Amino acid sequence: MPKLKQQGFMKALQCRECGREYPLEARHVCEFDFGPLEVAYDYAKIKSKLTRAAIAKRPHSMWRYRELLPVAKAPTVGLEVGFTPLIKADRLAKRLGIRELWIKNDAVNYPTLSFKDRVVSVALSRARELGYETVACASTGNLANSVAANAAASGMKAFVFIPHDLEKGKVINSLIYGANVISIKGHYDEVNRLCAEIAGKYDWAFVNVNMRPYYAEGSKSQGFEILEQLGWKIPRHTVVPMASGSLLTKIHKSYQEFIKVGLVKKSNYSVHGAQATGCSPISTAHRAGQDFFKPVKPDTIAKSLAIGTPADGFYALKVFKETGGASDDVTDDEIREGIKLLAETEGIFSETAGGVTVGVAKKLIASGAIPADDSAVLCITGNGLKTLDAVENHAGRTRNISPSLREFDALLDSDKTLTTK
Amino acid sequence: MPKLKQQGFMKALQCRECGREYPLEARHVCEFDFGPLEVAYDYAKIKSKLTRAAIAKRPHSMWRYRELLPVAKAPTVGLEVGFTPLIKADRLAKRLGIRELWIKNDAVNYPTLSFKDRVVSVALSRARELGYETVACASTGNLANSVAANAAASGMKAFVFIPHDLEKGKVINSLIYGANVISIKGHYDEVNRLCAEIAGKYDWAFVNVNMRPYYAEGSKSQGFEILEQLGWKIPRHTVVPMASGSLLTKIHKSYQEFIKVGLVKKSNYSVHGAQATGCSPISTAHRAGQDFFKPVKPDTIAKSLAIGTPADGFYALKVFKETGGASDDVTDDEIREGIKLLAETEGIFSETAGGVTVGVAKKLIASGAIPADDSAVLCITGNGLKTLDAVENHAGRTRNISPSLREFDALLDSDKTLTTK
Repeated sequence: MPKLKQQGFMKALQCRECGREYPLEARHVCEFDFGPLEVAYDYAKIKSKLTRAAIAKRPHSMWRYRELLPVAKAPTVGLEVGFTPLIKADRLAKRLGIRELWIKNDAVNYPTLSFKDRVVSVALSRARELGYETVACASTGNLANSVAANAAASGMKAFVFIPHDLEKGKVINSLIYGANVISIKGHYDEVNRLCAEIAGKYDWAFVNVNMRPYYAEGSKSQGFEILEQLGWKIPRHTVVPMASGSLLTKIHKSYQEFIKVGLVKKSNYSVHGAQATGCSPISTAHRAGQDFFKPVKPDTIAKSLAIGTPADGFYALKVFKETGGASDDVTDDEIREGIKLLAETEGIFSETAGGVTVGVAKKLIASGAIPADDSAVLCITGNGLKTLDAVENHAGRTRNISPSLREFDALLDSDKTLTTK
Repeated sequence: MPKLKQQGFMKALQCRECGREYPLEARHVCEFDFGPLEVAYDYAKIKSKLTRAAIAKRPHSMWRYRELLPVAKAPTVGLEVGFTPLIKADRLAKRLGIRELWIKNDAVNYPTLSFKDRVVSVALSRARELGYETVACASTGNLANSVAANAAASGMKAFVFIPHDLEKGKVINSLIYGANVISIKGHYDEVNRLCAEIAGKYDWAFVNVNMRPYYAEGSKSQGFEILEQLGWKIPRHTVVPMASGSLLTKIHKSYQEFIKVGLVKKSNYSVHGAQATGCSPISTAHRAGQDFFKPVKPDTIAKSLAIGTPADGFYALKVFKETGGASDDVTDDEIREGIKLLAETEGIFSETAGGVTVGVAKKLIASGAIPADDSAVLCITGNGLKTLDAVENHAGRTRNISPSLREFDALLDSDKTLTTK
């Protein structure tokens, strides 16, 4: 084992289970108990540097919190990523029956319109520090887009591995950047297993395999931004969609870290998890009161959440326990309703995962798991243009006429569903 | 004629031809010579208020320049719009053979991923000030998306009129917000004429008909941002895509206004215009040395630029004359090449209009109209996910294998087009 050496604010990689430390390399599993490795930071040093005043002077991107992100030096990939809008959603709040509601809107994240740009800019910046020039990923789509785009922008080579049944938009949106796109006849979990094998053989930076400890940390930036944008405080409730469960655990971690370094005051908060009924291993386990989940074979329109064997499912269940969070899931119809509701009330068109988050938030508010007189943040993670297929026949219909005023008058007169008031 | 009364920093509407003044209402044409009306500002008052220091303290949105935008009070629609990234495009610069290149990237504009969110937030904010609750537009797609989304977010009713042959993504991306979408069997110019008739009969705020003087001013914000983001200076060259020609004239106006109110120093600059060969009335006129254009029937994949009778074509031609700008156009194949080149070098996936801008920039640099040792800004106006159809069979191809390491090894071995270096 090489000697451990601090890099920037990172002390080491550390096993989440046994606490054993490893050097800051491209590795992700403990050799002793196969526990996942995580980056350990020098929080004392960070606390002295990362003040509200220091942050205020920095560019509006996720990198304004760079001491808490796992790069040794200045980032080199994805400098524009993050600091997406936090929208006060009064019209949606009214429809869902809650006092105060916020939308954290990563549907407009830079450059590929999903929260994955956060994890990828970290993973690629770190990959470059470690000397890699070829990057790769297993992906349900959004990650593929982001790896392809960010690799192109920084002149790295990219291999992206996707399940064969992905939405067309997500496939084109990877190919267009010149990435090598490998389509696998199988589910995401099979793609993922193949990538673990490939990562073992080829010396590439697989962002969500050997680079996973760095990669996953990028998600924290969404949480950091929420806290700053709310005026340096922790929201009482946060609803997060779950695929592997990683984003949810990192949102929780971001809140804990900001408390630890003194940027926000400690306060009572709950982090809730949203899944699609067609792929709900985590929410099913939570509702059954279990602290382990049973893998499932996904069948849902929410393809970006279709991970039947969620790598961080176990840790997501722990977050519910620690924060009093709830978890639920919604059907494909409820997902489409959620997308439509968010679009009609707030002008935000989210991908299917956003429909999951809105749909589950609706259920949690209705059940009282999120009390009506409280405040909540919903995490929207990707843009609706990526999953057009899912809403194509459910968005509504156009009225078709010739370019004639008389025809328009007649249409307005006859079709009372056209709302002018 | 009602008495003229200053509202905020606006003095009146004024005919661009004869200079006659009109009250600040929803009207767009001079009653005497049918010249277009434009907002006249109190620049002396603006100069005293709109300083670099004042701007620096404001939120990162287009509204940080609000004294130069035509609303009387604080804006109420689209508070998050604008301040999109200005990217230093070194990799694309190298490919195009120019010393320095910047991309102004409205492909990630809030909320609907095109520069139209700028004009719509102005038009809807102003419409509300004037008492309207129903808004409408004639659109080639992007504007429809933006009116639908921004109206939904602010609780206004929307009618959007589109040509029947629009890209599917743009249609769904209007319907999803609950807007009334009227599909017209005809070209955009026919849609536009119908809307002029409807605007005459129904008392709605048509953003690009009776609200046009306010609406069009929103485009200036893209120019203001470029100047601030470049460190308060005017780029030597700016390449702008042209549909009606309005954006180009407003970019020019934004540079002039910042000089006028003392925010940037006067310097030599050229504004160049880009069109698709299949709809190039303005560039054709410019190359023929004429100061008027001949209307055309559009036939191009760049549907967002497919305006055969460009309302501001005449004024765009004047801008070329005043600034030494050039204009050119590119074929559908060159448009696709432009999209691909931008994606592969900078990780930015633009809609067809962006391919037009990149393609024309390439031609202008090659011809010396933009000298190789100079600096240029390219205006990218919309996201590639909106025009997937145009690149669907040109983005590249996936490689399809089973989830087997052996199959992947064999693929890498046999397919030498897979680039790992």
